[in-house]
Amino acid sequence: MNFASDNVYGVHPLILESLAEANAGTASSYAGDDLSRRSEEKLSEIFGREVRAFLVTTGTAANGLALSALTPGYGAILCHGEAHIFCDECNSPEFFTGGAKIIGIHGPAGKITPAQIEKVLKGFIRGEHDPKPKGVSITNATELGTLYSPAEVKAIADLVHPRGMKLHMDGARFANAVASLGCPPADLTWKAGVDVMSFGATKNGAMMLEAVVFFDLALAEDFAYRRMRSGQLVSKSRYLGAQMLAYLKDDLWLKNARAANGLAAKLAEGLRTIPAVRIPNPVQANEVFAIIPRRLNDALLAEGAKFYDWMPDSLGDAIRDDEIFVRFVLSFATPQQDVEAFIALVKRLTK
Amino acid sequence: MNFASDNVYGVHPLILESLAEANAGTASSYAGDDLSRRSEEKLSEIFGREVRAFLVTTGTAANGLALSALTPGYGAILCHGEAHIFCDECNSPEFFTGGAKIIGIHGPAGKITPAQIEKVLKGFIRGEHDPKPKGVSITNATELGTLYSPAEVKAIADLVHPRGMKLHMDGARFANAVASLGCPPADLTWKAGVDVMSFGATKNGAMMLEAVVFFDLALAEDFAYRRMRSGQLVSKSRYLGAQMLAYLKDDLWLKNARAANGLAAKLAEGLRTIPAVRIPNPVQANEVFAIIPRRLNDALLAEGAKFYDWMPDSLGDAIRDDEIFVRFVLSFATPQQDVEAFIALVKRLTK
Amino acid sequence: MNFASDNVYGVHPLILESLAEANAGTASSYAGDDLSRRSEEKLSEIFGREVRAFLVTTGTAANGLALSALTPGYGAILCHGEAHIFCDECNSPEFFTGGAKIIGIHGPAGKITPAQIEKVLKGFIRGEHDPKPKGVSITNATELGTLYSPAEVKAIADLVHPRGMKLHMDGARFANAVASLGCPPADLTWKAGVDVMSFGATKNGAMMLEAVVFFDLALAEDFAYRRMRSGQLVSKSRYLGAQMLAYLKDDLWLKNARAANGLAAKLAEGLRTIPAVRIPNPVQANEVFAIIPRRLNDALLAEGAKFYDWMPDSLGDAIRDDEIFVRFVLSFATPQQDVEAFIALVKRLTK
Amino acid sequence: MNFASDNVYGVHPLILESLAEANAGTASSYAGDDLSRRSEEKLSEIFGREVRAFLVTTGTAANGLALSALTPGYGAILCHGEAHIFCDECNSPEFFTGGAKIIGIHGPAGKITPAQIEKVLKGFIRGEHDPKPKGVSITNATELGTLYSPAEVKAIADLVHPRGMKLHMDGARFANAVASLGCPPADLTWKAGVDVMSFGATKNGAMMLEAVVFFDLALAEDFAYRRMRSGQLVSKSRYLGAQMLAYLKDDLWLKNARAANGLAAKLAEGLRTIPAVRIPNPVQANEVFAIIPRRLNDALLAEGAKFYDWMPDSLGDAIRDDEIFVRFVLSFATPQQDVEAFIALVKRLTK
Repeated sequence: MNFASDNVYGVHPLILESLAEANAGTASSYAGDDLSRRSEEKLSEIFGREVRAFLVTTGTAANGLALSALTPGYGAILCHGEAHIFCDECNSPEFFTGGAKIIGIHGPAGKITPAQIEKVLKGFIRGEHDPKPKGVSITNATELGTLYSPAEVKAIADLVHPRGMKLHMDGARFANAVASLGCPPADLTWKAGVDVMSFGATKNGAMMLEAVVFFDLALAEDFAYRRMRSGQLVSKSRYLGAQMLAYLKDDLWLKNARAANGLAAKLAEGLRTIPAVRIPNPVQANEVFAIIPRRLNDALLAEGAKFYDWMPDSLGDAIRDDEIFVRFVLSFATPQQDVEAFIALVKRLTK
Repeated sequence: MNFASDNVYGVHPLILESLAEANAGTASSYAGDDLSRRSEEKLSEIFGREVRAFLVTTGTAANGLALSALTPGYGAILCHGEAHIFCDECNSPEFFTGGAKIIGIHGPAGKITPAQIEKVLKGFIRGEHDPKPKGVSITNATELGTLYSPAEVKAIADLVHPRGMKLHMDGARFANAVASLGCPPADLTWKAGVDVMSFGATKNGAMMLEAVVFFDLALAEDFAYRRMRSGQLVSKSRYLGAQMLAYLKDDLWLKNARAANGLAAKLAEGLRTIPAVRIPNPVQANEVFAIIPRRLNDALLAEGAKFYDWMPDSLGDAIRDDEIFVRFVLSFATPQQDVEAFIALVKRLTK
Repeated sequence: MNFASDNVYGVHPLILESLAEANAGTASSYAGDDLSRRSEEKLSEIFGREVRAFLVTTGTAANGLALSALTPGYGAILCHGEAHIFCDECNSPEFFTGGAKIIGIHGPAGKITPAQIEKVLKGFIRGEHDPKPKGVSITNATELGTLYSPAEVKAIADLVHPRGMKLHMDGARFANAVASLGCPPADLTWKAGVDVMSFGATKNGAMMLEAVVFFDLALAEDFAYRRMRSGQLVSKSRYLGAQMLAYLKDDLWLKNARAANGLAAKLAEGLRTIPAVRIPNPVQANEVFAIIPRRLNDALLAEGAKFYDWMPDSLGDAIRDDEIFVRFVLSFATPQQDVEAFIALVKRLTK
Repeated sequence: MNFASDNVYGVHPLILESLAEANAGTASSYAGDDLSRRSEEKLSEIFGREVRAFLVTTGTAANGLALSALTPGYGAILCHGEAHIFCDECNSPEFFTGGAKIIGIHGPAGKITPAQIEKVLKGFIRGEHDPKPKGVSITNATELGTLYSPAEVKAIADLVHPRGMKLHMDGARFANAVASLGCPPADLTWKAGVDVMSFGATKNGAMMLEAVVFFDLALAEDFAYRRMRSGQLVSKSRYLGAQMLAYLKDDLWLKNARAANGLAAKLAEGLRTIPAVRIPNPVQANEVFAIIPRRLNDALLAEGAKFYDWMPDSLGDAIRDDEIFVRFVLSFATPQQDVEAFIALVKRLTK
């Protein structure tokens, strides 16, 4: 019963197979291979327009590189206070951008609102004594397993674009968002004003693969230099291209996401029947966050269940001292029986 | 007939298999998995002492990260003028080190000598108006397919250590060096004074895998932070660990290197019989550099042979205007018949 | 009536004179001159021990450079949420440190407490996914015109030193702190555990002059390189040395600070007699912060008085919507009659 | 007899006076003062067109900041191999630009030629494996006391502009160049295609003052942020503005430069009559470079004369082992009798 993260699970068999298929013969290196090129074409097809797509090996690199195309070192990027770029990347955005300020905003249910962004921007009244706001980064699906709708994304884009700022989407779990909303990828991204995104694949079945996808093509100028300079231009690039093509083929990315989302819904449904457990936010993707008694937490861990606790900052008074905020992440590869067994275990332990 | 680079060839079957083997079940992410840990142990075994080893996905990242542990932004690193860190990484060393100066020295046959290093160091007489020399980086096997012997490495280490400088080895083709010299890896590294190395695997059969290996363990302090911050801490890290274990198992790394070296020797042997072709440096690893007539070069390319020309800077007057300096790289996976066919082709074209 | 900042006032006549005195003849440049050297000696004398002192031209540079000696780019520095390094320097600390995270803590009366620092440090439980805490920076006198006592400084030093962290003091208004506390400079700095400080002079009578003063001499190693690299090694350095010697001579620095502090006390005393005005924090240095009616604020500005409003974050519910938080800064050069006239004006306007 | 540098001499009396004049009353800080604003206007007048001018305290900062407006960290800047930005600034350009590569070209008489630049640019054929060439920086007057004519500047600008590159002029001794050429400042800068320059004043009579002057106004966007972030926005900025206005008033800058140039001409004239001394380059500004016997060098130093030796790289075989290359710098403030006495001394010592 491992709900620690989606990245504790392995690679989808079809993606693994694609690596073997790509292994024959020679191929140009450093993104000059056919598979890398076809990845970009396939992503253009998925998004219903021309995009520029750059394959990299980690989400942290994808985010840092994408942000480096939005802001110089004297700029500022606004994001949620629990965003990966703010909390989990060891100053990586600062590294890639040459020292930009990442400003975390604590918004409801893992999301930041236009009103919150506007309020922060109003504080920038002193010219160069402050950094210059250059962009907003939103995560979709969010770190709390919730979703921005296309309209919510658009409201943010419409707020920041007139100020000369750009909009980045951290899509480490973008597939889960699209699968849940059931909308075309375009609606949630460029049609809603997203300028560049980190298109995640690793958490959802790839081995090590993310793409920086540009909708504002002007931002992609020189991006190949950025990728190279950061050590993210893989020499045997065909194996990134192969992963991406397999990931996108026949909607594997959405199938995997639907499976994970479905398991999350199932887990949430089960936990909601248990009085000791509270689920404060909607469960819209592949994560379930719950407030549970500390004693239950300890007992579950003692039984070998794997999951992490989470910063309770977003809960305010909604959590008591004898409670803990925990996160369960579901993968396409999480065995369904693990979900069922876990619900049964919680029931048993809280009886 | 593809001699463009060792990275145009694929992954060794045993390494590919290891990925599938690693795919079952769950594993801790972010280098917390068993395979990553065992990789470090195995590298310690290979080097005959405790090392700290950090797996990353590209050689550029391995070099940049290693150098960042040697020098602050106000420092200088000396290396060969044709070193990868000087010529091929788009300011990546500058990026990872926060702006250190990389100083290229043009030494004979791809190598720099203690005398050359000493001469450059003597120029640092003006305190903080110059950067502070913090390290030397040597590449072994070199960019020109030659080797530093353990004694040559030691002579450099003995020169720089008393000045508070450290010695880095770019070992993108380290396996080829060890296989060629037939010495224990220890002799060529820490016993000769190397403080940290980039231990390459990608060019020699892995998919995307290098290790930063520390012999000076104090330098490894905080290195986990450096790796994370640069987006090189892979979430599904087991697939790096698996590659490394397969690469080292039963001396696969040396077997591959021997195969590649053997093909290079064979190619050199064949080319040496052809009057129009001159091979200016010893062929000691898996690369053959040759001075050939430009007309021959054009004819070979027209016949579909793949290889690159190389900066002729090291040749001085030894090359004529109607000649060109070209590089042939051999991989463990280069078909032997390609070598034979290529020699035959050159013979035919120069008849 | 200009209370906008201490830097709107000019240079003390004795310091101005020192520039003319220094002007005769030739002098070694780039900090090789006698006046620069004697500045360091004089600072050692003032602090009652050997220090290393590096003269620079701005407080922002002094802070950034000092922090760069404490933390690498993957580190974190904790400070007050209204600290200059957090709020007023346009990512300069990030620039000088190569991307370190500056973490603002909102403590009472412009100060952060050991308990607050400890709580933040307890959040660093995830290794390299977080930056590594490397230092704490406190401002004394604080941004809110309050003071850390030697005991308060020591409590913070004693908390962070065992964790391998260093303590920086932003002493842009250090003279005001020393003058107010009446203690030896040593007691407030190295005897209390400060490792490095920004020793301010500009706000207190110099033209453009700050010193980075090291008590932990090991941290000063290579600092000359840092200063040079950042464009802060002035060629005609004698004019920085001259300023510093004049500033320290016959306790001019303390006399100036006492004068400014005295005016602040006088202003506070006057304002406290006015019911519409509230002074929430102790007035311990040369700044007075007051909560005043917005109408009064507008009226004062309309009368030509100059001062700024300040972030009301520290006040919580103590400020009403029709009120505003304002700052008055007093300089050694502020005319006493301006203080008197201002008090009279406030009285008149609130009658 | 001090010919070590122009910065070993003091501040021109009129500039010193201007500081005292600026000292009365209050003034807005952080470049909001009238004197700073009027400086920009005066520079526009001098250059015969609208410029944006930013005052800073050192030439190293001026250069680094100017270059940071031309190139991102993945870019390259070409310059002469003896340029200050290449040889004398301790990785400061790398620091300010976030890691750009500075490429030194060894051209004749301290200058680089369009042909040399073109040759280097032709080497950039491998896309993102190289940095992207973003600019050229020329120094005028050069480090070797020679001059680029307007036509020579224009030839370089016309070469690089069509490639999307920008042209920077390091004008640490710009006044000497203008005074020597006798042309309008416009002819040597924006009319010849210079996009941004470091306009020096310190060496030529100011205390600590340089301006970054933009002719390509688009490059100046956000530059105020860059200056602030690097700790170069001086709080009591009126004292920079005052220096600049005094420096430009009634052509003081050109008068000082003419004086210094005249002394250099005089020194060169005297030395040319001495058989043991050779002056390899034209003496066009305020510096004289000479090849002299090592014995003479030692004897002159023993007599108390102050001057430095210089890298002999540009001389090739023109210098013998028993000779040394030395530099004499003349200031507006160098006593004429020192020049005469020095010539006499050389004559005496070589008799």
